[in-house]
Amino acid sequence: MTKLKWGMIGGGEGSQIGPAHRLGALADGLFEFAAGALDHRPEIGREYAQRLGVSADRAYGSWQEMLAGEKDRDDRIDLVTIATPNATHYEIAKAFLEAGFNVLCEKPMTMTVEEGEDIVRVAEASGNICAVNYCYSAYPMVRQARAMVRAGEIGKVRLVVTNFSHGHHGDAGDADNPRVRWRYDPSVAGVSGQFADCGIHAMHMASFVCDDDVETLSADFASTIKSRKLEDDAMVNFRMSGGTVGRLWTSSVAIGRQHGFEFQVFGETGGLRWHAEQPNQLIYTPLGGRTQIMEKGEGGLHGDAIRLSRVAIAHPEGFPMAVANIYCDLADAILGRETDGLPSASDGVRSMSAVHAAVASAKAGGQWLDARPPMFR
Amino acid sequence: MTKLKWGMIGGGEGSQIGPAHRLGALADGLFEFAAGALDHRPEIGREYAQRLGVSADRAYGSWQEMLAGEKDRDDRIDLVTIATPNATHYEIAKAFLEAGFNVLCEKPMTMTVEEGEDIVRVAEASGNICAVNYCYSAYPMVRQARAMVRAGEIGKVRLVVTNFSHGHHGDAGDADNPRVRWRYDPSVAGVSGQFADCGIHAMHMASFVCDDDVETLSADFASTIKSRKLEDDAMVNFRMSGGTVGRLWTSSVAIGRQHGFEFQVFGETGGLRWHAEQPNQLIYTPLGGRTQIMEKGEGGLHGDAIRLSRVAIAHPEGFPMAVANIYCDLADAILGRETDGLPSASDGVRSMSAVHAAVASAKAGGQWLDARPPMFR
Amino acid sequence: MTKLKWGMIGGGEGSQIGPAHRLGALADGLFEFAAGALDHRPEIGREYAQRLGVSADRAYGSWQEMLAGEKDRDDRIDLVTIATPNATHYEIAKAFLEAGFNVLCEKPMTMTVEEGEDIVRVAEASGNICAVNYCYSAYPMVRQARAMVRAGEIGKVRLVVTNFSHGHHGDAGDADNPRVRWRYDPSVAGVSGQFADCGIHAMHMASFVCDDDVETLSADFASTIKSRKLEDDAMVNFRMSGGTVGRLWTSSVAIGRQHGFEFQVFGETGGLRWHAEQPNQLIYTPLGGRTQIMEKGEGGLHGDAIRLSRVAIAHPEGFPMAVANIYCDLADAILGRETDGLPSASDGVRSMSAVHAAVASAKAGGQWLDARPPMFR
Amino acid sequence: MTKLKWGMIGGGEGSQIGPAHRLGALADGLFEFAAGALDHRPEIGREYAQRLGVSADRAYGSWQEMLAGEKDRDDRIDLVTIATPNATHYEIAKAFLEAGFNVLCEKPMTMTVEEGEDIVRVAEASGNICAVNYCYSAYPMVRQARAMVRAGEIGKVRLVVTNFSHGHHGDAGDADNPRVRWRYDPSVAGVSGQFADCGIHAMHMASFVCDDDVETLSADFASTIKSRKLEDDAMVNFRMSGGTVGRLWTSSVAIGRQHGFEFQVFGETGGLRWHAEQPNQLIYTPLGGRTQIMEKGEGGLHGDAIRLSRVAIAHPEGFPMAVANIYCDLADAILGRETDGLPSASDGVRSMSAVHAAVASAKAGGQWLDARPPMFR
Repeated sequence: MTKLKWGMIGGGEGSQIGPAHRLGALADGLFEFAAGALDHRPEIGREYAQRLGVSADRAYGSWQEMLAGEKDRDDRIDLVTIATPNATHYEIAKAFLEAGFNVLCEKPMTMTVEEGEDIVRVAEASGNICAVNYCYSAYPMVRQARAMVRAGEIGKVRLVVTNFSHGHHGDAGDADNPRVRWRYDPSVAGVSGQFADCGIHAMHMASFVCDDDVETLSADFASTIKSRKLEDDAMVNFRMSGGTVGRLWTSSVAIGRQHGFEFQVFGETGGLRWHAEQPNQLIYTPLGGRTQIMEKGEGGLHGDAIRLSRVAIAHPEGFPMAVANIYCDLADAILGRETDGLPSASDGVRSMSAVHAAVASAKAGGQWLDARPPMFR
Repeated sequence: MTKLKWGMIGGGEGSQIGPAHRLGALADGLFEFAAGALDHRPEIGREYAQRLGVSADRAYGSWQEMLAGEKDRDDRIDLVTIATPNATHYEIAKAFLEAGFNVLCEKPMTMTVEEGEDIVRVAEASGNICAVNYCYSAYPMVRQARAMVRAGEIGKVRLVVTNFSHGHHGDAGDADNPRVRWRYDPSVAGVSGQFADCGIHAMHMASFVCDDDVETLSADFASTIKSRKLEDDAMVNFRMSGGTVGRLWTSSVAIGRQHGFEFQVFGETGGLRWHAEQPNQLIYTPLGGRTQIMEKGEGGLHGDAIRLSRVAIAHPEGFPMAVANIYCDLADAILGRETDGLPSASDGVRSMSAVHAAVASAKAGGQWLDARPPMFR
Repeated sequence: MTKLKWGMIGGGEGSQIGPAHRLGALADGLFEFAAGALDHRPEIGREYAQRLGVSADRAYGSWQEMLAGEKDRDDRIDLVTIATPNATHYEIAKAFLEAGFNVLCEKPMTMTVEEGEDIVRVAEASGNICAVNYCYSAYPMVRQARAMVRAGEIGKVRLVVTNFSHGHHGDAGDADNPRVRWRYDPSVAGVSGQFADCGIHAMHMASFVCDDDVETLSADFASTIKSRKLEDDAMVNFRMSGGTVGRLWTSSVAIGRQHGFEFQVFGETGGLRWHAEQPNQLIYTPLGGRTQIMEKGEGGLHGDAIRLSRVAIAHPEGFPMAVANIYCDLADAILGRETDGLPSASDGVRSMSAVHAAVASAKAGGQWLDARPPMFR
Repeated sequence: MTKLKWGMIGGGEGSQIGPAHRLGALADGLFEFAAGALDHRPEIGREYAQRLGVSADRAYGSWQEMLAGEKDRDDRIDLVTIATPNATHYEIAKAFLEAGFNVLCEKPMTMTVEEGEDIVRVAEASGNICAVNYCYSAYPMVRQARAMVRAGEIGKVRLVVTNFSHGHHGDAGDADNPRVRWRYDPSVAGVSGQFADCGIHAMHMASFVCDDDVETLSADFASTIKSRKLEDDAMVNFRMSGGTVGRLWTSSVAIGRQHGFEFQVFGETGGLRWHAEQPNQLIYTPLGGRTQIMEKGEGGLHGDAIRLSRVAIAHPEGFPMAVANIYCDLADAILGRETDGLPSASDGVRSMSAVHAAVASAKAGGQWLDARPPMFR
């Protein structure tokens, strides 16, 4: 088995996301770490890449250098992961797609809807893969939930409720903590704080599990810590194209909630619940029946849930393996195998459009607005 | 210890609520069951009351008969509980208050805001107690939560999130089930279905625990079962007078949620969580600290939480004892002792005002509206 | 409905058990509190009984006085509850049984096996009811578990595992705390500490749910707090007459376990789990199937589970209602109705025999011994 | 960073354990997969190793071939993992240790105590690492528990209770299932079934967390499925050298328990609980205080718990990362860095000695026996 060649931009020493991607990409032996531009400081990035096993000639000082260096190699990378600051995703993704590379982009894919639509078009024109790292959707039991919905096992979906509410920014005295501050600074984070940061994971999840798109929304935003210019708590009500009612709460001041990412889906003949802190269980209640605990690894699960699990029932698999599952799907996609769950550039632009619609709705006192990017109306 | 005399209107044989009130009133030996008009069919009501131990002369055929019979007795009842169909609460409560009786009224106290304001005025003029049975607020650990908020133990409250979402009306084929049908029939239930039925428990709870009033709200209502004329799922965002942000979700189609009544309160220095299906625990997280499990019966709880508990730590006390706690508070109030947690007629009219505001807001596409009754603006 | 007449011995002011019995006896309106000898100090007992509503002539100064006073009355009590210090149970129970009264005795029924066998014979000869307050067995979902086992719904039982392990005596500095000290003092507690105090609840539960008797046992006792003369932690392995393997752990030094009473039963075709801190759920897993959460109040439960529940599904019922269920069963038994779950004098003597066998086994290095009272060998 | 070279024996295509080791060894980029003898069928093993990226000259047909091929290479493997059938571990481990290789051996390390003592001596004489894969001990919050015990944070340990009880062999009709059958066949499994298979994980865990050794034990074994020649359920009571009381229950017929590996440790000033199905939490109760939920990734954890975690708080890490942690510790040990938690050959022989003592004790009716290997008495 020849490994695919993988490169990474961003994710330098000390970042949270760099190790998660390297672990995800390398864990299953599908990719080798062939190239990297890991830091905005060229020398530091080159040195770190080499320390991680990248050969000297492919340890680049910038993404531009990497693009130039890789694009004409015979053994050029099969996939590039973009894990740079949010505002740079668009430019880098576009450049690599245009040069014929497959891309995995951290969320948010872009800062504006226009940029997002541009990426969709560029990706389509190029014929390359452009995936967005909504990695929670790659947990086996999330895939099981989607497969059950698709198979009609809970009937037509009436209602989806999803939360991503934690309390890690609940300290007003944390105003100067660099891990916190930028998220509420419009000059860095853009138009939205918590909703753009965490809420869009929940919104993608709603679409993913229901296999449906958000059409309209009404939002209520609050800066419960008054000094914040962007919201640290938001409620978004929405309707999906199939008529499903959606409710999404996201918060960063919910002290005591550690992660707080969860969904509940309710259909005509059953309900499902899942919680990212106990990701190996899916709770299922058939209409008129008892609540059942479904376990990753149990007999009779749908294909995706089986394929994306590595160890036996009741041996928990966690976040690193969910990220690895994104890379499993990417490897399949690159090798031309049928894949189905990979979050795409369309998902990326839909998220950005929902963010902008939610900001506008909240400003307009909860007015219902179209959440779709113009290209999908 | 002489027992107080208690009477009941409604709650006839086969009702859910009758036994709950009798158990609540009698469990602690504070009241004796002295009078009753338990059924709209006079003979059946008289017979049933006697079977339950009421003497023949105080087993009445109607509330009017009971009012006439009791009002001039020397040993007249100290308290009457009204557990009749919702639309009759106003008339009966008003009549008994005006005749000088103390009243415990099932929720909703009235069908309109005007009626609610009238009850507040009548109760005030009469000097009698008019309580509303928001009995979940009488669980010991709910009282503990309120006491902690009042004592500043979680700092100024920023956010309250409360749900009352169950799935017991999730079967579309249940259209003719008499326990379900009336709740979505405007001619019986009034302007609202699930929000008026269950949501107002959650809204009262938010006010109770935060010790604050709802000022404005924005609502989204849905009839996820299309044949229903009233909503079976609702989201209400609100603001309290102290600036607290509120989020309330209520549903009757959340299949798999058995009761689904819970609250979370987040302040500047901590968070609290409580769930009505495990009412003896209160989950507390101080800012920057670990989540702690507080137990009914542990050392150092606030006074109300101690007073309203009967058995030792880790011996669960359930719903019947919460109702009994309302009667404990009523006995104290009747005997002129200091009480503090009893839900009042003001709470009753605030609920009704919130229902009407939510209905109007939902119709107006989520417009923010004043949730307060005119008398409290 | 005429109420049955109820009397109580012990359970004076400040005791834990007195209020629990009064609440249990009175909650459902089946009994009236007619007579009492509540304190070993005659005047205090008489005064307290009257304060609780007992008439002056039936507020007695001692159990002997009560026996003399009640036995020739036409309206004598239908049931007497004995909640005095453990060492007095035998004498009082025997005297009341011989005088023709029905008895509910707190556990342990007696201090020795011989006394226990005597009570069984006396009760049988008298034709009266002698029940022992293993009240945990009266939770609706415990009755459901037993009914499922009896109906063969988990197949022949292979294994029962039950624990009653709390941490409330985990403080070595508590040596002089009067609520703790006597439990480890052989002159008061007898031959066993924690096993006799809590373990026998678990052992009765095993027999109750499996509908089978303990035949042999092997025990390991430890005084983890060295100053204690009796065990504060014990493990008892046993075999039931049907061949079922049993494992029972009981501890009072398991810091962090609040109550810690639970059982698991495993049969050829399924398993059941129940936990006294969440008594309204029974966890059921059919062989080869998914774990299901059974709820008190759900459709299709066995008769006892329905009969002994008062409020709707997901409205929790707690410990006071379990005690009340014992009184419901007693009322039925007194009135000559079919009852089935009431713990009997036979259960009482079996417990005492198991205590003595466990003490002997632990002393003999875990030797397997017959756990049955001689009369049942 | 040069990667260490890793080889594997056993773990061929279709095995459970092979992928778990490869993932564990490769996930963090510390090892490269340099050599393998993966199958007892030479050609199949060679082909599979090459498919997994091993070069042709190091894809061996047998362990003997691998030993011969590797021992004189300059770039010989730094570590060999032995994941062959249990009865072969001794011979292979001994041969590789004697040839100067570091070894990670699957459990059980050997089939007899004598063999186990031999491995300890050979490892010591060789100066090489011989670790045993008690991988559950490498979860971050297990390391935290041990560090807390060592630091005296729960005082002197009084009691440890540990279970490894699942229900996956609960089907009597499974007699011919090849994944099940061998475990109860003495000719393959040796003297013990479930205790040797799962119980020793729990026994190692008790020693690991308490930082103490098992000295004596008393056992009760049962074949609840009668056709089984070896036990499918066992209870083992033990005493540690520091006086700690131990209780260990292991079962394979506990239908409904999916994994069922957990421990509770109770000391003079606190208690700890951990459950392998939710491995990222450690439950801590200080004496007289509230139960606290400790989270992997929270501030202030002990060093090992920090070092062996990869992603932020509330992002769960599961079983594959626990195995990877064993490899992290191995890499440190190979590179001469201080390590502390690696399960050693001494742990391996202690387990085997406990198995043989438990078998003998159960046969002798629960007699207390020395559980230590002769070399450690």
